[in-house]
Amino acid sequence: MTHAWLDGYQQRVDAALDRWLPEARVAPSHLHEAMRYAVLGPGKRVRPALCYATGDALGIPLERLDGPACAVELIHAYSLVHDDLPAMDNDDLRRGRPTCHRQFDEATAILAGDALMALAFRILAHDPAMVEDPATRLEMINLLATACGSRGMVGGQSLDLAAEGKPIERSELEYIHIRKTGALIHTSVMLAALSSETATARQREHLEHMAKQIGLAFQIQDDVLDVTGDTDTLGKTGGRDIERNKATYPGIMGLKPAQELALELHQQALEALAPFGDHARPLRLLCNYLMHRDT
Amino acid sequence: MTHAWLDGYQQRVDAALDRWLPEARVAPSHLHEAMRYAVLGPGKRVRPALCYATGDALGIPLERLDGPACAVELIHAYSLVHDDLPAMDNDDLRRGRPTCHRQFDEATAILAGDALMALAFRILAHDPAMVEDPATRLEMINLLATACGSRGMVGGQSLDLAAEGKPIERSELEYIHIRKTGALIHTSVMLAALSSETATARQREHLEHMAKQIGLAFQIQDDVLDVTGDTDTLGKTGGRDIERNKATYPGIMGLKPAQELALELHQQALEALAPFGDHARPLRLLCNYLMHRDT
Repeated sequence: MTHAWLDGYQQRVDAALDRWLPEARVAPSHLHEAMRYAVLGPGKRVRPALCYATGDALGIPLERLDGPACAVELIHAYSLVHDDLPAMDNDDLRRGRPTCHRQFDEATAILAGDALMALAFRILAHDPAMVEDPATRLEMINLLATACGSRGMVGGQSLDLAAEGKPIERSELEYIHIRKTGALIHTSVMLAALSSETATARQREHLEHMAKQIGLAFQIQDDVLDVTGDTDTLGKTGGRDIERNKATYPGIMGLKPAQELALELHQQALEALAPFGDHARPLRLLCNYLMHRDT
Repeated sequence: MTHAWLDGYQQRVDAALDRWLPEARVAPSHLHEAMRYAVLGPGKRVRPALCYATGDALGIPLERLDGPACAVELIHAYSLVHDDLPAMDNDDLRRGRPTCHRQFDEATAILAGDALMALAFRILAHDPAMVEDPATRLEMINLLATACGSRGMVGGQSLDLAAEGKPIERSELEYIHIRKTGALIHTSVMLAALSSETATARQREHLEHMAKQIGLAFQIQDDVLDVTGDTDTLGKTGGRDIERNKATYPGIMGLKPAQELALELHQQALEALAPFGDHARPLRLLCNYLMHRDT
């Protein structure tokens, strides 16, 4: 990222992930090496940053959010490992490096993904630094499990694969994106909101609204970057969506209207943050970064 | 199974699984259909039965154990779906039917497995009929996440794949089996033990000991059946371990010594149940069934 604040979040979650991930010298070494490769490589750490920035907006000590930030990043990393597999998106490059199954092998990539998901739940159940109230933690686990289940992220990926090469309406595309990317973005914000002992119901509503708008804007921007970006900058193969006849916002609406829609959603997200005043400065920076990134 | 008691457990968990699994008509239908196919087909439901039978030994109302019983069966079912994939064991038959990726497709099988794991954790976080104390439930989630993580079931499968075609010592084989099968068997018993508000530390120790012995005995028996069983009875391809040069107990020790070791472990498991008297009758029946099954 580019701003010191956001870089700080990134370093913070990387240090926490490094602590939670088993060392590569611990058996089974090959599996642990693959897990670390999939998680600790270059990456924007958008979801942890959303979690921490929401925490800053609510005045939560950030160590309480290391667990949730790790959990959402682990879920994100596992989903990339599985989505990149030959039977799914069949991608060779991710974040500028060989995908996990290219670097290791398919069996190891499948198992590493499985183990990353299990670790995410272990952290939420086990991290002593997290919010103390066990009932709140159960609520957090339920939220994450729902977000990454068959009616959340995994369901979105399933529908996305099924839609390849077929004509699709904007409402269907939104339905897919809300699940495939939106659910985990939303969860990243709401895990932080749940970690606050003082947040009001109204504050949570505002954050929830912001999360929904920015989640969709983020995915539209991803679609736009697939058209406008090049492989070197993206760190993954550009133009893949078009090549595979994937439904995208630029494909359905045209490039310029898609860019305008992303900006409009971004604007709405910023408006939802107004009541938080200066405390939401990191969240605003992050929303701006997500709109103006080139990868 | 064969005894009314055990059949009762099986029907009980099947009904609970049917309630928790999303209906096939709910979108994404294809994914939900695959999840139901992978879970609700024929199967012994050994892990739920261990959970319920432990509950009966401790006098726990069985509805409190429907959640844990479903969770362990969902984890077991997801692991079979992923293990059967072409990149792993490449099996075409499971429980007498085409494996999930043969009945649907590979992408759907990967995603269905992922969604089944997420559902298992959602149930433990969310089921209102389970033990009330939220701290105990967090402990249960931690136990399950550890058992199915990189140092548990997934790690065991990784080591098992790595050992294919290589000479291996008995201690290494035990190390693999304790993780690959033993961890989830152990968890099935201990989730029930944690659900009791009255179980003593001593009772938990006895159950833990029983779970470890029976978990290993169960896996040895599996290895034995791969040699002695035929494809029709097993519902999966017999002789596969030998064909793939997999390390097995009969392969390392010889068939008869492996059978004797299983019986010895079985005997130790029964001894650990002695202090529970008549209450452990279902657990004893189950241990006997696990030793004398032919599939």
